[in-house]
Amino acid sequence: MNIVIIGAGNLATQLTKSLLSNNLQITQVYSRSMESAETLGKLANCKYTNDLDLIDSNSDLYIVSVNDDAIEDVISRLKTKTGIIVHTAGSVPMEIFNGKYEKYGVFYPLQTFSKEKEVDFGMIPVCIEASDNNTLQTLKDIGEKLSENVQEINSKDRKILHLSAVFVCNFVNYMYSIGEELNNKNHIDFKLLIPLIIETAEKVKNNSPSNVQTGPAIRNDQAIINKHMELLNEFPEFKKIYSFVSGCIQEFHKDK
Amino acid sequence: MNIVIIGAGNLATQLTKSLLSNNLQITQVYSRSMESAETLGKLANCKYTNDLDLIDSNSDLYIVSVNDDAIEDVISRLKTKTGIIVHTAGSVPMEIFNGKYEKYGVFYPLQTFSKEKEVDFGMIPVCIEASDNNTLQTLKDIGEKLSENVQEINSKDRKILHLSAVFVCNFVNYMYSIGEELNNKNHIDFKLLIPLIIETAEKVKNNSPSNVQTGPAIRNDQAIINKHMELLNEFPEFKKIYSFVSGCIQEFHKDK
Repeated sequence: MNIVIIGAGNLATQLTKSLLSNNLQITQVYSRSMESAETLGKLANCKYTNDLDLIDSNSDLYIVSVNDDAIEDVISRLKTKTGIIVHTAGSVPMEIFNGKYEKYGVFYPLQTFSKEKEVDFGMIPVCIEASDNNTLQTLKDIGEKLSENVQEINSKDRKILHLSAVFVCNFVNYMYSIGEELNNKNHIDFKLLIPLIIETAEKVKNNSPSNVQTGPAIRNDQAIINKHMELLNEFPEFKKIYSFVSGCIQEFHKDK
Repeated sequence: MNIVIIGAGNLATQLTKSLLSNNLQITQVYSRSMESAETLGKLANCKYTNDLDLIDSNSDLYIVSVNDDAIEDVISRLKTKTGIIVHTAGSVPMEIFNGKYEKYGVFYPLQTFSKEKEVDFGMIPVCIEASDNNTLQTLKDIGEKLSENVQEINSKDRKILHLSAVFVCNFVNYMYSIGEELNNKNHIDFKLLIPLIIETAEKVKNNSPSNVQTGPAIRNDQAIINKHMELLNEFPEFKKIYSFVSGCIQEFHKDK
C-alpha cells in the first residue's frame, strides 16, 4: 500500500512518524510551504511537493491533514481514480467527499499534537468512518497497526468528541495558563502545581469527574471564595473567570 | 516523636497512612464524628476520641486537618504546653496561631485528596512554614520522610498556590465534567477522552501552558467556534462557558 500525506503540520508529522515506524510506505508528501514539504519528505525519505497538481494520481491512500478550511479546496483538486481519500479532522463531516470520490473516509486520532512533544500513538483512540465496508476495513487495518484503540465513530458523534475535546484539552490548558500566570506574577515556581495537575487528570481515569469535584465552589465555601476574589483584584480578567466558573459549578451540582 | 491527628477527612486519612508507612508514631486521632474517629483510630492502631477536651496534652506534634472554618475553634481548645501545632490548610495564614502557642507552623501538602483514590506522597510538594527555626527543621525532617519535595513557603505565597490550585484542579475537573456530560448525553463513551486528558496534563510538565495553547479560540477559527456554539444550543449553560472562555483565551493571547 502506497500512502500520500497531504499536509505537514503537527498531526501530519506525528502520523507520518507513526506510519513509518509501523513499516507502512509513504511515497509522497505535500505541503503548501516548500520548506515544510521538504522537512517532512526527508523525514519520510520520499518525494515531496508544494504543488497540488503534482500529487501522484495512482496512490492507494491519501491522508489529508490540513487546516479545516483548506480541506474542501484540497480534495477538489486531487486526481486519484482508485485511491482511498480520508481527512483527519474532528469537526468536518465525511459527506464533504460525497460525489467527488468513490472510496473515502475519516481517520481522526483523538489527541492533541504538538511539534514540542512526541506522542505515542499506541493508546490514542483512532476514530474511523468510511464510504463502504471495504474501505472501513482498510482504515481499520491501518489504524490497528498504529493504535490499540480503533473506534468506528460517525460524523455526528465525531463532532461532539471534537467539542468535548475543546473543554477537556483547550480550556483545561487555559486554566493551567492562569495558574502559571498567577504563580509567575508572584515569583512562585509553576512546577509546584504539576503533581496536582497530573493527579487531577489521573483521577478521572477511574472516576466520573462530576463525582470527584472538589474545591470551594462545590462546598459553597463563601469565605474562601471571597478571599480568592480579593486576591484576584489585580487580575480583573481572572477574577471574572473565577466568579463565572464558580457559579457554573454550583449550578451544575445544584440538583445532583 | 508522638503525633496526634486532628481531623479524619480525606487529607487527614491519606496523611495518616503516609506517616504510618514511614514508621512515624501516631498516638491519638480526633474527629467530631465518633464513627470517623474510630475508623481512622483503628487504621492507625491508636486511641481515638470525638471530644476535643480528651486530646492528649503531652504530645510532640498536633496536625490539625479540619475544615478551614473549624481550625480557629479547634486550636483555641488544645491544651498542649510544649508540643508543636500545625494546620494543613492552603489559605489559612500561620498567624492564626499567634499568641496561642509557642511552637507552631503549617504543613500543607499541595495535592487533591479523595477517599476514592490512594495518593503517593513521594512527589507531592509539602509546603512548610514555622514559628521558629527549630520547629521549621522538625517539620522539614517529617516532610522529607514523606516526600522528596519539601518547600518553605510563606503564608502569602501559600494563599496564591491555593488559588492557582482552584484553577488547575477544581476548574479543570469541572471542564472534564462538561466533556463527560456532552459525551453521555450523546451516548459516547467518556473514556475516549482519557488519552487526550492525560496528554494535555503531561505536556505542561516540560512546556509553559501558554506556549502550547491550541484550539479554535487561539486560532481565531470563527467557523469552528460557530459550529460548536450551534451544537451547544441544547446546553445553554455550557454554551455560555464556551463563549466566555473562548473570549478569555483570545484576550489572554492577544498581546503575546
